[in-house]
Amino acid sequence: MSARGLWITLEGGDGSGKTTQAALLEKWLRAQGREVLRTREPGGSEVGVLIRDIVLHHRGDIAPRAEALLYAADRAHHVATVVRPALERGAVVVQDRYLDSSVAYQGAGRVLDADQVRELSLWAAEGALPDLTVLLDLDPADARRRLDSADKPFDRLEAEREEFHQRVREAYLGLAAAEPGRFLVVDAAQDPERIAEAVRARIAAML
Amino acid sequence: MSARGLWITLEGGDGSGKTTQAALLEKWLRAQGREVLRTREPGGSEVGVLIRDIVLHHRGDIAPRAEALLYAADRAHHVATVVRPALERGAVVVQDRYLDSSVAYQGAGRVLDADQVRELSLWAAEGALPDLTVLLDLDPADARRRLDSADKPFDRLEAEREEFHQRVREAYLGLAAAEPGRFLVVDAAQDPERIAEAVRARIAAML
Repeated sequence: MSARGLWITLEGGDGSGKTTQAALLEKWLRAQGREVLRTREPGGSEVGVLIRDIVLHHRGDIAPRAEALLYAADRAHHVATVVRPALERGAVVVQDRYLDSSVAYQGAGRVLDADQVRELSLWAAEGALPDLTVLLDLDPADARRRLDSADKPFDRLEAEREEFHQRVREAYLGLAAAEPGRFLVVDAAQDPERIAEAVRARIAAML
Repeated sequence: MSARGLWITLEGGDGSGKTTQAALLEKWLRAQGREVLRTREPGGSEVGVLIRDIVLHHRGDIAPRAEALLYAADRAHHVATVVRPALERGAVVVQDRYLDSSVAYQGAGRVLDADQVRELSLWAAEGALPDLTVLLDLDPADARRRLDSADKPFDRLEAEREEFHQRVREAYLGLAAAEPGRFLVVDAAQDPERIAEAVRARIAAML
């Protein structure tokens, strides 16, 4: 998709260090003279902020298919109006979460079929896939310890069981194994600067 | 789908008289001692009201696929949490607009493939289709006269809009022709009470 720019997504459970790595990566890319767009899903567009508010903060249950469709709607608008234009003007897009999140979390939830969720996401995004997806792989127990010390309130997804997060981790690793060319899997228990070095090495070869 | 209740949807362009017919139908059904749920899409559930607000009132464009996905999300939540429970307890659901609206309007807009929009809706609703769909068929020029009291000449934009509504009408008639068992097509230019009689005759045979 990215004829001129470069599209990098960061994946992993909450507490795996995506925000830290996105910030380090942005700083390095800017030092290389690149235009960088930091964005995220859900909520990376004006419409997306409204959708994110429904998905993450609505009191009361949302039907599973409705939830999957809301994430897909956020994705469709974000890719069409934010990501694609940035790539077309040559920017590097550094994005927190993309379709692998939907597939891993829905697959781990075992309510909806993961293949259907992937198909839905791909339809939403007109088939667009990132140039590189960095998977920050971390044991959920370690991630939990990081989040507990961060002292911020858990949202609806964060509050779910540790067993669920274990299945999310396995689902992510399965996705990475299926597309080794797109994924870079890094051990997120390492020092953040060492992780950033590994990410930079891979991206330097792509620029 | 409706093991015990009965699910009736009303379709047609704006100004075709759906609200009037839904009210007459509800009154008659209640006189028969039936529990009636009057509802609509989008916005027939608590989550749906939030989605409807984005789709209908957001300032600025929404990407076509995002819009279709938002309608589908509204549908998924509405069918799962409002329509299905009502039918399971034996109610008659009288609903303003359902998937035929999405297919007819998207098909007429010619941006997205109508078959894909239908597939998306059916996935959202787990394949649920109404027992009866009443199509209030009306020439768009007549509908416009009803909606707009001022009889001013059309400008270019309004002419385009009328051409669009003509395509919506044709799309609806095509859907009705493809599923004659589910659809009842009535001439919406008739007196409302005559239309209501035709609808009642069909429903009486189903109760």
